[in-house]
Amino acid sequence: MSLTEEQPVAHANLAADRLARLREQLAAAPYDTLVLTTPESVNYATGYRSVPAQIFPGYALAAVVTADTVVLVASASDTAAAIDSGVAPDDIVPFGRFYFSGDAPAATMSDRHASRDEALGVALSRVSRGRTGVEGLSSSTSLRAVVEAHASVVTDASDWVMAVRAVKLPAEQALLHQAAALAEAGITAALADAHAGVTERELADKVAAVMAAGGGTPRFVVVTTGARSPLSDAFPTDLACRPGDLIRFDVGCVYGGYWSDIARTAVVGEPAALQRERYDALLAGVLAEFEVARPGVTAGEVFAAAQKTVQGLGLTPYRRHHVGHAIGLTVYERPIIAEGNEIVLEPGMVFCLETPYYEIGWGGMMVEDTGVVTDSGFELFTSIDRSLRVVAP
Amino acid sequence: MSLTEEQPVAHANLAADRLARLREQLAAAPYDTLVLTTPESVNYATGYRSVPAQIFPGYALAAVVTADTVVLVASASDTAAAIDSGVAPDDIVPFGRFYFSGDAPAATMSDRHASRDEALGVALSRVSRGRTGVEGLSSSTSLRAVVEAHASVVTDASDWVMAVRAVKLPAEQALLHQAAALAEAGITAALADAHAGVTERELADKVAAVMAAGGGTPRFVVVTTGARSPLSDAFPTDLACRPGDLIRFDVGCVYGGYWSDIARTAVVGEPAALQRERYDALLAGVLAEFEVARPGVTAGEVFAAAQKTVQGLGLTPYRRHHVGHAIGLTVYERPIIAEGNEIVLEPGMVFCLETPYYEIGWGGMMVEDTGVVTDSGFELFTSIDRSLRVVAP
Repeated sequence: MSLTEEQPVAHANLAADRLARLREQLAAAPYDTLVLTTPESVNYATGYRSVPAQIFPGYALAAVVTADTVVLVASASDTAAAIDSGVAPDDIVPFGRFYFSGDAPAATMSDRHASRDEALGVALSRVSRGRTGVEGLSSSTSLRAVVEAHASVVTDASDWVMAVRAVKLPAEQALLHQAAALAEAGITAALADAHAGVTERELADKVAAVMAAGGGTPRFVVVTTGARSPLSDAFPTDLACRPGDLIRFDVGCVYGGYWSDIARTAVVGEPAALQRERYDALLAGVLAEFEVARPGVTAGEVFAAAQKTVQGLGLTPYRRHHVGHAIGLTVYERPIIAEGNEIVLEPGMVFCLETPYYEIGWGGMMVEDTGVVTDSGFELFTSIDRSLRVVAP
Repeated sequence: MSLTEEQPVAHANLAADRLARLREQLAAAPYDTLVLTTPESVNYATGYRSVPAQIFPGYALAAVVTADTVVLVASASDTAAAIDSGVAPDDIVPFGRFYFSGDAPAATMSDRHASRDEALGVALSRVSRGRTGVEGLSSSTSLRAVVEAHASVVTDASDWVMAVRAVKLPAEQALLHQAAALAEAGITAALADAHAGVTERELADKVAAVMAAGGGTPRFVVVTTGARSPLSDAFPTDLACRPGDLIRFDVGCVYGGYWSDIARTAVVGEPAALQRERYDALLAGVLAEFEVARPGVTAGEVFAAAQKTVQGLGLTPYRRHHVGHAIGLTVYERPIIAEGNEIVLEPGMVFCLETPYYEIGWGGMMVEDTGVVTDSGFELFTSIDRSLRVVAP
């Protein structure tokens, strides 16, 4: 499978489509003005995806959205790339120091405002004030202060924003599908090379290289074997797998801003009876999720289907905080497929559904797939063999 | 160059050596107890590198360090991997819900404390109170509250911690060297394939795949050409390079937790006179930095050497916020090579030194290399050709 030869997924209208969805929802929301503060929501509204925001936790960025205005609040160093990505220079309020030479607008944007929140105040003063919803309102006191100085009614809009982002547009689904395909291609390539004696690190490097060659940015490549297989999230080591060992892959990359998160399990040589039984129970559990997930069903009902199925096949108690989560511009989004969660599934929601089992001293197994809630059910983005894979001993 | 065949850099004593350095410095510090709250500092002190902390901005984690105790405060989901990496179960105070099965210590760590800061309070109650230095003291009100409840004198230790981490131990230097070598190998492979008509994305995918195959996690792969070459940090697109275009690479990966950040510039076909002149000035500027950097010199003096050299060769004014930065467990660390910065260089400090130039409408060029301050000068980790590279037209 040569993903490097494929054309990137087309997404020419992605930015416009997302902004249209945001505004459509805003028309029915209890806010007139929306302040977005996470890099992913800023990207959603403006189409600008910041490289430094992928590198620096808490990177300062914001967007102000109303029915007829979008203003990007960004570091002077972001301005040239933001304009290149389609943001009009007049719709940027820059802050901080960064020098571009030449006569272009970005070359005039250094030292205009001292901080993100000072620039945000300027952006807010340009738009209608009214009721203002703020993503991450409690994340800093200066954010709250600047919004309160410009708006009469201020509420936290974090949950509202995530609910808007939860329903993925067709172009978003295409990117999530491609990110999943790259994770699958990585696992397939690693398993094709696997043999007794191969190390976690060798397998992980193979997964990551295939993702990267296909245009995905590897973001987590958990490959653990033997005694390390039940560690949940852990970096790969030089531990070599031996006959009888489980090998657990839980891997994801980012493609065009959208994440994947896929898992498969293998065993070196023929599986022992208990490995087979437990894997069959876990696989049946995730298949039950695929079956139950559809519009109108709650996340809690999907959880119950998985737990009941796994336990019914003898792996009991099967205790999990969740057996799946939504995915999009971030890897772990609401709704979470958790016990008792009353959130109702809607068409367009994209989920990673999974049934991990981690028994320290015995082993770890999991299967995890991604798909979208359709009008009548759940359509998988993933297609590689879901069985307990056997690696030549 | 087949980096996949190489053995990973040995770092068996890395964790112990870093903790020893931290304690040696703590003995002379105005604190008896240190509270670390960034994933990188927690890794520095405990040896535990959390996978989820690489994925979730602001991931909750902490460590408490005294002359004779280290306590890791971590999510229940981190506990199995933390114990595997060498942290004693008794030295972990867990919080949150995550189920491991079996009889091992990690299987008893779910639902013990509700939050990071509740668990941190328990960790602090175990150790001597006294004067307490806290990394990121102002990052949350609940962090401040819990520390103040357990300690008499509380001060922010963020700058102190970064100053300790600024001097890299030999094992850290080896990892930084390897991360730089992987970035170099990526650029070399991409340039070997480059030709008129190749796209930014094709070149970037090649860089990333080579990093990943060698065990590095690609974290930023900026490859911009032609009109996009001066955009500073920007994601690659399907723009194809044409004869006369500049191609600018600014790329980095993480190897064993340590970052790289390396840049090179190429031109498609023979460089125009102005491209040559300006590149010569920028290259001379970074060479001047290599020459000046040594113990006892200030960061501001290194900055001045670069700026004076570049301007002396006709690229004037050469305005930059900085011409380099330290690098380690994070990509952009202090000291910054900035105008007037009085911080004095010390042996063991590792720097990325760079002289970028971004002229919108004309082009972007840069050269960036990594090395370590030795007892008498600056020793480069990088070795690939630093000239303006020529790609077949």
